Amino acid sequence: MKPIATPQILSLKDIEAFKTIVGEEYVLIDEEALHNYGHDETEHLLFLPNAVVKPYTTQEVSAILNYCNEHKIPVTPRGAGTGLSGGALPQLGGVLLSTERFNKILEIDERNLQVTTEPGVITEVLQNTVKEKGLFYPPDPSSRGSCFIGGNISENSGGPKAVKYGVVKDYVLNLEVVLPNGEIIWTGCNVLKNSTGYNLTQLIVGSEGTLGIVTKIVLKLIPLPKYDLLMLVPFTDLEKASEAVSAIFRAGFTPSGLELMEIDALKIVSKMVDSHAVPVNDDIAAHLIIEVDGNNADVLMNEMEAISELLIQYNAGEVFFADDAQQKAELWKLRRRVAEAVKSSGYTIEEDAVVPRAELPKLIKGVKELGKQFGFHAVCYGHAGDGNLHIRINHPTIKNSYGNTEMVEALKALFTLVNSLGGTISGEHGIGLIQKPYMHVVFKEANLKLMRSIKQSFDPNNILNAGKIFDLN
Amino acid sequence: MKPIATPQILSLKDIEAFKTIVGEEYVLIDEEALHNYGHDETEHLLFLPNAVVKPYTTQEVSAILNYCNEHKIPVTPRGAGTGLSGGALPQLGGVLLSTERFNKILEIDERNLQVTTEPGVITEVLQNTVKEKGLFYPPDPSSRGSCFIGGNISENSGGPKAVKYGVVKDYVLNLEVVLPNGEIIWTGCNVLKNSTGYNLTQLIVGSEGTLGIVTKIVLKLIPLPKYDLLMLVPFTDLEKASEAVSAIFRAGFTPSGLELMEIDALKIVSKMVDSHAVPVNDDIAAHLIIEVDGNNADVLMNEMEAISELLIQYNAGEVFFADDAQQKAELWKLRRRVAEAVKSSGYTIEEDAVVPRAELPKLIKGVKELGKQFGFHAVCYGHAGDGNLHIRINHPTIKNSYGNTEMVEALKALFTLVNSLGGTISGEHGIGLIQKPYMHVVFKEANLKLMRSIKQSFDPNNILNAGKIFDLN
Repeated sequence: MKPIATPQILSLKDIEAFKTIVGEEYVLIDEEALHNYGHDETEHLLFLPNAVVKPYTTQEVSAILNYCNEHKIPVTPRGAGTGLSGGALPQLGGVLLSTERFNKILEIDERNLQVTTEPGVITEVLQNTVKEKGLFYPPDPSSRGSCFIGGNISENSGGPKAVKYGVVKDYVLNLEVVLPNGEIIWTGCNVLKNSTGYNLTQLIVGSEGTLGIVTKIVLKLIPLPKYDLLMLVPFTDLEKASEAVSAIFRAGFTPSGLELMEIDALKIVSKMVDSHAVPVNDDIAAHLIIEVDGNNADVLMNEMEAISELLIQYNAGEVFFADDAQQKAELWKLRRRVAEAVKSSGYTIEEDAVVPRAELPKLIKGVKELGKQFGFHAVCYGHAGDGNLHIRINHPTIKNSYGNTEMVEALKALFTLVNSLGGTISGEHGIGLIQKPYMHVVFKEANLKLMRSIKQSFDPNNILNAGKIFDLN
Repeated sequence: MKPIATPQILSLKDIEAFKTIVGEEYVLIDEEALHNYGHDETEHLLFLPNAVVKPYTTQEVSAILNYCNEHKIPVTPRGAGTGLSGGALPQLGGVLLSTERFNKILEIDERNLQVTTEPGVITEVLQNTVKEKGLFYPPDPSSRGSCFIGGNISENSGGPKAVKYGVVKDYVLNLEVVLPNGEIIWTGCNVLKNSTGYNLTQLIVGSEGTLGIVTKIVLKLIPLPKYDLLMLVPFTDLEKASEAVSAIFRAGFTPSGLELMEIDALKIVSKMVDSHAVPVNDDIAAHLIIEVDGNNADVLMNEMEAISELLIQYNAGEVFFADDAQQKAELWKLRRRVAEAVKSSGYTIEEDAVVPRAELPKLIKGVKELGKQFGFHAVCYGHAGDGNLHIRINHPTIKNSYGNTEMVEALKALFTLVNSLGGTISGEHGIGLIQKPYMHVVFKEANLKLMRSIKQSFDPNNILNAGKIFDLN
């Protein structure tokens, strides 16, 4: 990938200052490092920072921000670099602050069902560690094997379990945050209910690293459900499949996972991982992956049967029950790796639209029509139970939406549709760098003005992840 | 009650302007009205507003705020006046804006499991209306029979079900808000997941009417559980009872209600409502009220039995199972009316402290010691499952904490203890007017500075519920 030009802002004196703070070996300025930290998983975009700085303690983060604030140096915080909206791209140059050394789970409080962790812990590692104590942290983005919990906080991530268990924001109790001027605060306190002042915790969650850098995280945990059952249901009609999604909830069921995967996406990922777990017959248009969980196996089995009964009305094909852990893992692997698979086969542009779930059929239909109109092919998959659809776009010539007038026009049309269905731009990926052009489609200027003034309250010099979510001017 | 003096700010011209906006009959300036709207349920406090204004539409609210903003007139928004922190007290005089005419449930969206309502709908009315459709809105403060859903949003209310189902913030999807300058926005959108810009919705929830006036509310609903079981468990030792609370969760159970009631409180309320439903023997120190709910009666029965088995280790007495709807209603009535009962028997000062649930025994012990030290008697009850304890204080001579140096000292000591246990001031009542003196006990100045600057972003002229939560200067 060829880098898009960034300004050179840092002097040798600045570099020396950072080395004094974090130690020589944790300030990188070689070309390879700048390349490695210059991209995330967003489209084909590369922006080189001037330096990569890797602090180890909250005090080091504080010292870096204090220095950069004083010298008005842009700072881009970065977790694992798995983001899909460009939130970690250092498009202004300056400092790329990596949280990778914040990789310790600090305390599992079994008495209060809480965990305190640093932001650089891989989400799946965190999940597995609390699981050993019989505890459950549900939000699990598809990238959970590589993403950081800190990045999940920044984007208010979701994942397949969100449909029953909620998203990241529903589990965050308290955050240690370094403000742009270097001050260190805790946003709240480690309690389950809190009506004590404005909810700074929820303001930081999903703020995409623009208001502060999170250095410690306190999460609520719940008891781990004992059982889960998984089934795969093929549909000959994509819209029928998405109508079925809404019907499941209206019938009183709350699955712990309800994913939709269009057949084109499934074909691509099945090929990539060399799996034949799922039928890809030509008369199938899409599959639903449905999971239920709980503490009573019989109850779950009855629930699954009732759901599959219900789906017959929506022309569902033959239901495939995953019989054992291996079959379940195989199915989830297909779902989790679909983004990577379709991206590598040319679907480089990803949107993360979310609508009220009953509007999914209209959204999917609209996406296909826009594809015809603007000359791209789209595959859809995602968290259908939440109305959150990942739309992957393959255009014959345009591989980035960023900076491309034609694709931006197409996506404006997409988000105008989404907005008309009562939906919005992002369900779990954030706005970052690449979704900024659509904020006016879904928000009034008064909303954006409030957001900008909140940003200015936290970061008057606009040093921290500036130019993400919105432009200040 | 004798009113505490408020300034006279409104001119006849102002009154005429309000009459033009909302109609003559909806602007009240007679002494009786000013008295009726000059207090809520907080201590013994009465502040007369200069006028009570009752708009009917969002546009009318907008016109009132626009006028008041231009003329720098204080506006105090008010729901049903059931608040316990003085959030609706018009201590600066000016306009008392009542939302009582916003009393319509606008739409129940059964396809998406959502309800859109105006803020002046009584919470229980809302719950019962969606229940008819097989849907469930869980947050139910004890005052649910009289409080407004809008007030619940302002305070981020909880109630007994919060322990399993979460608090108000977990159900609010979107809010129509009139900003202090009269601009009307929707904070978000009607979707289950949202990573699109700063979370203005969660910033408004719990902001106690200081950032805007909520005029429409979109809430998430869930399927109504089919069954619930209720039991009452007596304990000879208050600390053992609160230890048992933590043990229930550690054993993997998530009750839908887990309330603690100290025997003194129970005696008072039993007498008031003339009930003999619950034994009040002298060897009982406290009761736990434990509810489980779900869709399978057998599973619930097993859960109840397992929980009562577990409680034997904590010296629980004989468990009383509520057999039918009437017995359940009787038990809940006692719990729901306890605040009213103890207040009328002299426990006029109420605190709403919340700690991590395993710290409850220490909190209760500390409260008793502070009572001895500062010469008051306290009874404790509340949402033990959440670590949220209502502490009712009966002092022989001091009936208000507001403006009383001695009681403020005592409560500073209380919140210093709460803070040392990892807790905070309010779990569900808010800070309002009377808890302001303790904000510095639990927050750094940097936190308060951020909150003040958010307030200034929304309300540069500081007209809207000014002097609540914190003072600007």
